[in-house]
Amino acid sequence: MPSVTPCGSGGGVGGNTAVMPIPALGAATAAIETPALLVDLDALELNIARLADYASARGLRLRPHAKTHKCAAIARLQLAAGAVGVCVQKTGEAEALQAAGIDRLYLSNEVIDERKLARLAVLATRCTAFAIAVDSPLGVQRLAQALRDAGVGTSRVEVFVEIDVGQGRCGLDSAAAVVALARQVIDAGLRFGGLQAYQGKAQHLRTPAQRAAAIAVAAQRASAARDALLAAGLPCPLITGAGSGSFVDEAASGVYGELQCGSYVFMDRDYADNEWAAGAPRFEHALFVKAQVISRGPAHAVIDAGHKSHAIDSGLPRVRGADWRVDNGGDEHAILRGDALPGLGDTVWLIPGHCDPTVNLHDRLIAVRGGLEHGVVEAVWTVDARGCVQ
Amino acid sequence: MPSVTPCGSGGGVGGNTAVMPIPALGAATAAIETPALLVDLDALELNIARLADYASARGLRLRPHAKTHKCAAIARLQLAAGAVGVCVQKTGEAEALQAAGIDRLYLSNEVIDERKLARLAVLATRCTAFAIAVDSPLGVQRLAQALRDAGVGTSRVEVFVEIDVGQGRCGLDSAAAVVALARQVIDAGLRFGGLQAYQGKAQHLRTPAQRAAAIAVAAQRASAARDALLAAGLPCPLITGAGSGSFVDEAASGVYGELQCGSYVFMDRDYADNEWAAGAPRFEHALFVKAQVISRGPAHAVIDAGHKSHAIDSGLPRVRGADWRVDNGGDEHAILRGDALPGLGDTVWLIPGHCDPTVNLHDRLIAVRGGLEHGVVEAVWTVDARGCVQ
Repeated sequence: MPSVTPCGSGGGVGGNTAVMPIPALGAATAAIETPALLVDLDALELNIARLADYASARGLRLRPHAKTHKCAAIARLQLAAGAVGVCVQKTGEAEALQAAGIDRLYLSNEVIDERKLARLAVLATRCTAFAIAVDSPLGVQRLAQALRDAGVGTSRVEVFVEIDVGQGRCGLDSAAAVVALARQVIDAGLRFGGLQAYQGKAQHLRTPAQRAAAIAVAAQRASAARDALLAAGLPCPLITGAGSGSFVDEAASGVYGELQCGSYVFMDRDYADNEWAAGAPRFEHALFVKAQVISRGPAHAVIDAGHKSHAIDSGLPRVRGADWRVDNGGDEHAILRGDALPGLGDTVWLIPGHCDPTVNLHDRLIAVRGGLEHGVVEAVWTVDARGCVQ
Repeated sequence: MPSVTPCGSGGGVGGNTAVMPIPALGAATAAIETPALLVDLDALELNIARLADYASARGLRLRPHAKTHKCAAIARLQLAAGAVGVCVQKTGEAEALQAAGIDRLYLSNEVIDERKLARLAVLATRCTAFAIAVDSPLGVQRLAQALRDAGVGTSRVEVFVEIDVGQGRCGLDSAAAVVALARQVIDAGLRFGGLQAYQGKAQHLRTPAQRAAAIAVAAQRASAARDALLAAGLPCPLITGAGSGSFVDEAASGVYGELQCGSYVFMDRDYADNEWAAGAPRFEHALFVKAQVISRGPAHAVIDAGHKSHAIDSGLPRVRGADWRVDNGGDEHAILRGDALPGLGDTVWLIPGHCDPTVNLHDRLIAVRGGLEHGVVEAVWTVDARGCVQ
């Protein structure tokens, strides 16, 4: 069921299927041309259920980050499992998912451009719930102005003040600035939702102890900001953050009320390289690039998937079920070395180094049931927000 | 003039412009929302003319690689400047460009999948000239079979035998194997075009001397393969290869008859980091990502363009006209550090680290005339083959 996609993914909508072949529902995975991005539905559903159960057992809200999958079909599965909504990172991402039927959105990032804020004012009227992050007086002033200019009540939008809890990217770093900005939010008639407190740098620290130490600092900064708000007579309804590498630490902190994990649905190679504490929920690899050997040398095999098919910002992919070394072969190739290499025309399955930007390279996700080698195509999902960086 | 795009780029075709805003022709560059991929037309035209003049002055054929731009509008400019056709790297890339009106195509890569070969048999009937590379007996056998199965004369397709001239990726590495494969090509009734001899690893060796040494080896291997063909009584009509980093060396070798440069049209940061010999043609930066500061810290500025907007496989982008350090901020952010940092809402122009995969992240190229700061939008070009990895 490819959903309508307004901003990209022409291959799924208005595309010429003679050019980028879309497999028929029920087709065997062997019939899928390469390189293609596949989702193992059994693994995906397991991952979605495991985190949903973990959060609900602890009374935590779960608002998964849709920047990972950019796909309304997967967002629907997360909402059906109890998510309160999904996070997005860009204005266009929010618009594309709303157009595809997802109407509980949190844009967990700053927007300064007045044209984008005007677009968001319209979007807010189409959503059941719309929230956004801010970290500057200018951002709050322009957001409120855009809503007024569009005749949209400012109370329609929930606003989280972002604080820097160790990532060193966006977010305020003083409690006084947090209090002043929260007051500006409230004075503008916007709904103050609380604090955005995501520590992205903690996610791939390799040991549980390293991640716990980083999140201890994040939780301390978040609670200090919350205490400053309360001391100033302001509310702090919610502290939201956490990612797939560290969420057990945010959950244990007693400070965070909501988890924003994204990658857990797919689990890429980089997350698999983390060490995990005993008893922590485990997630399965659910995202794979199907590739084919197109050239063989005496001691290497060349496949038809390079970094236009899988993102390498977090390193090269791993081959599923084999210990072949993967070398960078450029935009459209990767080179395999090792023992018992596959032959010309053989299929290999790659576990991408980083799932989020890998999904963003593809127009659709081919959802298979029954495993990769012998499964069948159960759905073809449009990557609704593919390329929606604006 | 966005051209029709069959396999991707829904933003340009059937897209909802309210979601990914497409600037009006004649609009000022200030009106373009960020992040956006811009082409400086004055620089692009200069680059296209400089390489065309260089090749024609030396009696060399020029067949630019369209994997760089994936854009029929730019291919048309290259053909109008004297290119004999364009190279592509994937079956879908060939189909997308042909559907957009480019009908002289060379797929300079191996295709083994019988379904793709069946697609290419159809494509060959739609092209004025269609060529492909091979490096295995299975590839030749399947190609000829696909043409016969489609009722397409095998003589319709020109075939280049790829040899490994030092890259260690695809291509044959023995003269005897080259002779045997060329004979199989001819016996199958395919048109034997000669040798594909591209040395990708030479392109970013930093000094002219390093590149000259690598291409000396490549030319020696290519001429040895050619001599073996002639000694066996077979022709060797053409040796084709060369890239934007090394083409002066292939041109000087006397062995190569055709240049396949791609990146010269845009010149990314990685190519700019090469040292260039005095007297070698110089190319200008023509591809830029327009970005906006969305968050400011005391000693850093955060922009709204991360590696979902510019590829970082060859390193981070450089900021045009400034020496700020660019740090990786993840999928949707980059972090600038240095003196006199830009303020909240300010525009910065990024020179991408690697142009080919950066273009592949975007649905369209916004072609501006008169410079970035004060120019106007002259055309909006669809990236016709965006995402066409199959």
